This record gives sequence, C-alpha cells and structure tokens, in this order.
Amino acid sequence: MTNGTMVNVVFTAFASREDAHALAHEVGAVLASHGVSWELHVLDRDPAPALDRASLVVSLGGDGTFLRSARLAHGADARVMGVELGRVGFLLTVPPVAVAEEVRRAMADDNCVNRLALSLALPGQAGVAFALNEVLVSRVEPGRMVRVQTFVDDDQYLTYNADGVMVATPTGSTGHNFSAGGPVVDNELPVMLLTPVAPHFTIDRTIVVADTRTIRLEALDGNAVVLADGSSIGALQAGQSVVVTKAERPVRVIATNQSKLVNRLRKGLREGHA
Amino acid sequence: MTNGTMVNVVFTAFASREDAHALAHEVGAVLASHGVSWELHVLDRDPAPALDRASLVVSLGGDGTFLRSARLAHGADARVMGVELGRVGFLLTVPPVAVAEEVRRAMADDNCVNRLALSLALPGQAGVAFALNEVLVSRVEPGRMVRVQTFVDDDQYLTYNADGVMVATPTGSTGHNFSAGGPVVDNELPVMLLTPVAPHFTIDRTIVVADTRTIRLEALDGNAVVLADGSSIGALQAGQSVVVTKAERPVRVIATNQSKLVNRLRKGLREGHA
Amino acid sequence: MTNGTMVNVVFTAFASREDAHALAHEVGAVLASHGVSWELHVLDRDPAPALDRASLVVSLGGDGTFLRSARLAHGADARVMGVELGRVGFLLTVPPVAVAEEVRRAMADDNCVNRLALSLALPGQAGVAFALNEVLVSRVEPGRMVRVQTFVDDDQYLTYNADGVMVATPTGSTGHNFSAGGPVVDNELPVMLLTPVAPHFTIDRTIVVADTRTIRLEALDGNAVVLADGSSIGALQAGQSVVVTKAERPVRVIATNQSKLVNRLRKGLREGHA
Amino acid sequence: MTNGTMVNVVFTAFASREDAHALAHEVGAVLASHGVSWELHVLDRDPAPALDRASLVVSLGGDGTFLRSARLAHGADARVMGVELGRVGFLLTVPPVAVAEEVRRAMADDNCVNRLALSLALPGQAGVAFALNEVLVSRVEPGRMVRVQTFVDDDQYLTYNADGVMVATPTGSTGHNFSAGGPVVDNELPVMLLTPVAPHFTIDRTIVVADTRTIRLEALDGNAVVLADGSSIGALQAGQSVVVTKAERPVRVIATNQSKLVNRLRKGLREGHA
Repeated sequence: MTNGTMVNVVFTAFASREDAHALAHEVGAVLASHGVSWELHVLDRDPAPALDRASLVVSLGGDGTFLRSARLAHGADARVMGVELGRVGFLLTVPPVAVAEEVRRAMADDNCVNRLALSLALPGQAGVAFALNEVLVSRVEPGRMVRVQTFVDDDQYLTYNADGVMVATPTGSTGHNFSAGGPVVDNELPVMLLTPVAPHFTIDRTIVVADTRTIRLEALDGNAVVLADGSSIGALQAGQSVVVTKAERPVRVIATNQSKLVNRLRKGLREGHA
Repeated sequence: MTNGTMVNVVFTAFASREDAHALAHEVGAVLASHGVSWELHVLDRDPAPALDRASLVVSLGGDGTFLRSARLAHGADARVMGVELGRVGFLLTVPPVAVAEEVRRAMADDNCVNRLALSLALPGQAGVAFALNEVLVSRVEPGRMVRVQTFVDDDQYLTYNADGVMVATPTGSTGHNFSAGGPVVDNELPVMLLTPVAPHFTIDRTIVVADTRTIRLEALDGNAVVLADGSSIGALQAGQSVVVTKAERPVRVIATNQSKLVNRLRKGLREGHA
Repeated sequence: MTNGTMVNVVFTAFASREDAHALAHEVGAVLASHGVSWELHVLDRDPAPALDRASLVVSLGGDGTFLRSARLAHGADARVMGVELGRVGFLLTVPPVAVAEEVRRAMADDNCVNRLALSLALPGQAGVAFALNEVLVSRVEPGRMVRVQTFVDDDQYLTYNADGVMVATPTGSTGHNFSAGGPVVDNELPVMLLTPVAPHFTIDRTIVVADTRTIRLEALDGNAVVLADGSSIGALQAGQSVVVTKAERPVRVIATNQSKLVNRLRKGLREGHA
Repeated sequence: MTNGTMVNVVFTAFASREDAHALAHEVGAVLASHGVSWELHVLDRDPAPALDRASLVVSLGGDGTFLRSARLAHGADARVMGVELGRVGFLLTVPPVAVAEEVRRAMADDNCVNRLALSLALPGQAGVAFALNEVLVSRVEPGRMVRVQTFVDDDQYLTYNADGVMVATPTGSTGHNFSAGGPVVDNELPVMLLTPVAPHFTIDRTIVVADTRTIRLEALDGNAVVLADGSSIGALQAGQSVVVTKAERPVRVIATNQSKLVNRLRKGLREGHA
C-alpha cells in the first residue's frame, strides 16, 4: 500500500472502520495525482510505519484514533491532523476532496500548533512514558477508593480519597477531565490541570498550574495503578509516586476547524445528549 | 468466646482492629454481669455466627465494618448498631461503659429504624443480591468508560458515557454517591438515588425517585461489571441489564447519635479535610 | 367572558401571550358545547377570579404561568393543570382538541396528585407565605454574599457564605434548585431540599430531608432578602430567621404527560441547549 | 499622620478595623526608625492618597481590603502587598516586627509579580473600568435569571440562562469564581476564566482562554447589571454587551507566602469550614 520510500502522508484508522479505509484511498488517489506519496496505517494491525519530521499523520476516526495517531507522530516529531468521522452510527459526511485539500494545504505550509504533552516517571522504570490527554492514578478495582497525596513542586497540596486523581493537558480537558468536573481549556495554553475523580468530602475543584511545574501524585495506601491516556502503564505501592512534567517535545498538531475550542465544546454537547 | 447458646449480642470487627476486640471484651464483661450473653465475631476470620431476629449485631469500626455487619444482620433479620471507632490513627475515644449502656438500652427496647436496602437481579443468576449502600455498574478497567442506558419503571431516562452509574440508598448517600456529586439524604426517606459517576458531557445530577420504582441499568456496549456495596457480583454483556428494586426486608438499625444525618455530614467533613 | 355563575374551568395566561388567549377560546368553545362553563383569566391584568374546590385552573404558558396559576388554585383548594406552550419563539403546537379532551377527562375524574407546597413564617409578619417551587434567602445586592446558618428541627446544620440558600420542593427541583446544583426529584416524594447557591469553600451538596421537618434559615449578618417562588416577600436583619415547613394544604395538580419527571428532564435539556 | 512629602509606604485598612490601625502604627514606627516614610489610609474615610510608581501599598485586612488597595495601587502603577489579618473573630496574630521586615525587604527589592487585571468597556460609557477579581453580568433582582450570550473573539460560545456569567482572573479564581464551581488558578498564569453562576440545564463548566482574547457578554433580554469586583458599574439593555479584555497595565503585587496558591486554598478551606 506504500507508494514510494519517501512517504509523506500516513492515514491512520482502526481495522473496524472500513469507511475510514475507503476515505484514505479516495483522498490518497487525489494526493498521488499531485505527486504526494501516502500510506494507510491500520493502528491495531500494522507494524509501526516509518515516519520522519516531515511526515504528516492524518487520523481518520474519533478521539481514540487521534490519541493513538498523535502518539505515533510524537515519536518521530511528525505532525498530526485529525479528521473527525463521528461515532459509528453518527457518521459525519466528510467529502474526500475537502480532506485532500486540507492535507495539501498542511503539506505546503509548515504551520502547526504545539500542544502540551506530559512526561511521566514511574518508580523503578527507566525512561519516561508519554500522555497527550492525561495521567491518572486510579484505584485498581472498581468499588474501592485510592488515597493520593498531591504535590506541586515542593508544596504539599490536597490529599484525596477518590476514585482517582489526574493531571490533564489542555488537549485532554474535554476528555476524562471534563467528566470529572474539570474546566475546558484552550489547546494553546501552557497549563496543567490537577483534577480529582469523585473525591470523598474534599474540595473537588481542578487546580490549574503552569506547565513548568512538577506535579507528584503519591499513593498513600498502595492498590493504585497509573494510566497514560487510558492505558495502564504501571502500579504504585504505598508511598510510591508518579512524577508528571511537561514533555520535552510537544505534539505538533495541524489546527483545523474541528480542533477549535468552541467546536470541541459543541461536539461534546452534541454527543453527550445524543 | 461464646457465653451460651442463646447469644443476644454479637460484636463485629475486622481482625486488624485489636482496639475493637479489646472494647468488645470490656463491654461484654459489663453485659455478662447483667445476664446478657455476647460473642465477638471477627468478620474476616470467623465462620458466620448463629443469629436470629432477637439478636443485636454491634459493629465496632468504620463504614466498611458497618456494611459487613449490616449484611450479616439482614440475613437473619436481626438488628444492627454502629459504634464508630474512627480511622486507625484518628481513633475516637469510645468509653466502654457508654457502649454497654447503649447496648442495654437497645436490648430493652425493640425500637429500631428500618433502612432501605436494595435487591438486584442479574441476568442468568438465580436469586437476588443485596446492597445497603449502592449498586454500581462500572467499567471493567480504569481508563475506559461504560455506556449505560437507564430506565425507571417503563420510562427510558438518560444514557450515560461514564465511569459508572449507581443506584444508592439514603444510607449510601454519604458514601460513593456523595463522591460522585449526589445529595445527602436522611436515612429514613423512602427514596432511591440514580447517580452517574463522571459522566461525559451529560447532565450529571442525581435523579431521586420513590423506592417503589424499579430502576434498570442496561450496559450498551458490554465491558461492564456490577458491584454491590463495592464488591463485584457479576458482569454485563452488551444489551444486558441489572434490575434494582427495594429489598423485601429492610435493614433494622438502632438509631444512635452517630447515625443522625447531621453527624454523618460532620464526620464526612472532618475526615475529608483531615 | 364568563359563561355562567358556576365557572368550572379557568384558563390562565399572561397578557402578552395572545396565542394562549386564542387557544383558550378555541378550547372553551369545545367545552361550552359539552355544557362546561369557562373563563379566561389574564394573570397580570384581571382581578382574582371566583374559584372553589370544584374548579379547574388550566395554565396556558410556561413555568412562570404555572407557578402563578398554582398559587391561585391553591388559595381555593382548586385543581390546576399545566399546558406547556413553549417559550415565545419556540412554540409548541398544542392542538385545541387534545387540550379540550384532557380538560374534560380531568373534569370527569377527581384524580389529581398532591404536590408539596411550603409555608414560610417571617419575623414580625402575621400569617404565612406560600411557595410551590422554593424559598430562597439571598443577598440583597448582586456581587455580595449572604451568611446563613441552617437548622433542621433542633439540629444546627451547615453555615454558608453564599449567593443564597434555598429550601426547594420536588416540584421546584427542576427550577432554581437544579441551576444551583441540586438533584432532580420526582413530584410525588415527601421531601424538602436544602440547597446552597454558589457557597464559598463549603460542601455544596443538597441535603434532602422529610417534609415533616422544620427548616430554619438564619441570616447571620443581615443584608438578606427572602423570596418565595422568585418574588421578594421580606428582609432579614442579622440574627433573624425564616422558618420553612410543609404547607397544610398541598397543591392539587392534574398529572399530565408533561409533568412526568422524565419529561421535565427532557424539557430542561431541550431548552438548556437551545 | 504623614511623615513627609515623599511617602514610601501607605498602609490601608477599613475604618472599623482598629486592630489594623494599631498594627500600622507599630509597623510604621519601625519603618520610620529606618528612614522610611509611611501613612495610614483609611479606605472608607480618607481622600485618595498621593502615590507614585515607587510607592508600596500595604493592605491590612481581608480580601475586600486587598481588592480596594490593589485598585488604589493600580491607578498609580504602585506595588501592593497583602497582610492577611483574618476575619474579625478569627484574628490571626501577625507580629508587627515580621510585617516591618517584609515591608523593608519589598522596598529594597523591586521584585513583584504582575497579576492580570481586566478592562471592561460598557456601551455609552467613555473610558474603561477595571477589575482585579472578576467582571460579572448578573440579574438585577434576586430570584430572576439573566440570559447571556457569550463570545470569545469572533466565535459565539454558549448561551446561559443563569443567575449570572462572569469573567474571572487567576487572582479572582478563589473568589466568586470558586463559589460558582470554577477552578483554582495559579496567580501567574496568563488566562481568563469564563464561568456561569447557577446556569439552568446547560454545561456549567468554566472555559479557560488566553488573556489575549476578547470576551464579550451580551444580555439577551435586558434586566442585567454589570459588576466589577462586586461593585455595580452599569446596566445592560437587551442586545447590549460588556467587552472584557486584559487591562493594559497589570497589578504589581509583592509575592508573599500568603499569596501562594496552596496557601490561598488552605485559607479557603479553613474559613469555609469554620
């Protein structure tokens, strides 16, 4: 499916989304006619594609697809662009010609927005993990609470008995952070959001701090897992912490109409009350 | 440790709470001197004690101890009374003489408050399960959402993408329901609370209905577990439901100062900001 | 406009709603042909109509019209029925024949639901005031807070620094109580809701108690007004209280499809996101 | 009370706070012995003091005193420093020597933090008003709602039926914004918070945007007042707007231990549950 060794555009989609695959081929045909090489990468099937800083990853799907695609792009410092297809059953009609046009505009122009990503260090693990939406310390089992002490730089903040405690990015503000009661934040802002999930008899408000800060979440009684963008990446014993900072390298995102804050809000409202 | 075949009072505590065991023996000695037989039942060690409708179960510990003790009492339609000891490290001083006095008063008088309990029917399971605090349909794994459609009697209510959706009792209103944003409800009220946990872009308010209603929670996309008072009791496939109604038999609780709504609130505030 | 001395049906509407006046005449013509006498009462223009316990007040308009109509009906222990017309600009099409049918069914059958109303006693005022939705103690001026100490029966509850503190009925639960974060409550439940509005750094949850309780709201630093269903009815000096109890007489409401809890929720969602 | 024409330090307090006046004199004596001139300015009694950019305004009191003092300082681009005395009845013991030390350190060092202030333009008013905490569009009378359409730059955001809608600064995030459900924000962040107060059946989350944006609040049905830091500064007719932007000049605040985010949180918790 690769049209050359210098792949410029990589479409990404899940295996189940045949509508996305068809769209990739239609748009790809237009791109090829303009000399742009392309490839379809099926996220839950194909081996990792070869990407470099000049590549453009085009996510065809919903929020989950975009998160996976952004992670892929981030690894190579490539740019990523989201084409929202809508939930199965609520499909949006996305005209291939319009997508091709957007992709060509993005290729012609180096313009993109740097979005804050998070870096997490876990005890006993070399290297760091990455999150674009949020880092969550959660109870292992549903029905239990986790006890988490929070720190910002060297200051001890609140202690929560809660379902979980997260650090979210502006990108993630409309995700789990929103469900947990957090604010909606413009993508471009240099801030991190400290948001508890269902805390018991404590202040439940999000605390917003500069992305230059270091946030540490300490599990006081063990029984805690750490998740990055919804995937489990480790556990915490009592007294262990996860340390969250701004990732050195941001995620380079092509700004589209769909990524504007007001449109993210409208999409949420539309889907929430569907 | 049993002082006769006709046990009147059963103290309950967890194995780790030696302070509770000591208190049981001190109070038991006073009771025995008045001809009241007693027993200490260690919840996480001993086989189930023999109870009948005349028995009084006295919970020595916190909320978890009380839940377990109430479940035990409910099985025999016995009465239960909570003696709040405080969290380890925040121990309350509970004078044994005062406890003995309260127990003797409870024995002398048949007075107790009927607290609403919930009955749950799961697909493919004979019989029903029981909950005193809440029934929760939750995502299996942290970091994922569950999609739940709710029904009250025959009316379709809201559909939630959420960490979970619960039906709570007034007793449970200060538990997980509170963490999830629900109201605090006086123990005596004949109501059930339908409360979502971290719902995404939907109305997040509790819906309060009469305890004569039937609430059905349907998992739309599987991947859901059902918990009663925090313990997992089954799973739901896509399209399957748990049906929640008022249990035929209430839990018979001795009203103490500690079970008053205002004191439950104060306790929550005290512990929440500890 | 009266068709006889024994008026059976009184339509109520505001002067500005000419669509409601037209609907009243159309429905009235149908009723008259069945020997039912009727009258149109313009709420903000006409003197109070003669009503007795057999009368039926039919509110043509929105929530404000219904509140005023219910108050009118309550004075004579008459029944009230709401016909929701929608906000101007969002008019619902309500077929006159269907309304006539509903009215005739209500006349034939004595069936109605008793809805909890509140009674308020103010210091230095003889007699009591009435509220169907809520009693609110509010700061006098926007931009200031009021300090309110709350009591349920003889127990001192929380003290709030807030924009206001209210006691709401189940009927009022979808009104200001909802905006302030309170739960949605089925109309038929015998409960009162104690809900703060924008409290500062305090537990902001609604407290739900039996309608047999007495709730007292004490203004600690004066500067407070008391409102019943949104209308100011008095002021509180520092140390003065308003005492709220269940009104002796309920409001007798004809249950319609529109008054079902699920439909009140749907209406709220529809209008909230219009 | 002025000790020279070149006043360096102006203590500010309300007339009723005699403890603050005494503190000013004690600290002033220490300052004078080091050759620093000082003055006590009673906010609700004295004419505006002469200030220039080199002056230091020292607020002796609570949040209200600080707001008034900051406004005074801002007019002359002077610096302001808050000494929290605690609410009457909850007085903190603030040792005069420590205050004198802090003041001298602030004088010696030009160090201060620029805090975002807001500028508001009202229809038909020349010039702009100023707010350090928040700009609020509120209903005129308690018990009514205001209908407000919001815009960020040229994008139409949500429309609220609410008690009010505000734009808050990070400084104001622990004030009315917090009561209304908004997040707590570090003082130094370049953001504005758009927060509704008790909105009816709408998304009630704060929207966080860059302080380079322009926020416009349009009253759709009149009956609205505009408040800056809690003081009424004008009214809006139906269709009229208030336009809120970052003020050209920030407020120059001496960072103290008390102004740290974590301490603002702790103070709120302490007072909220007093």
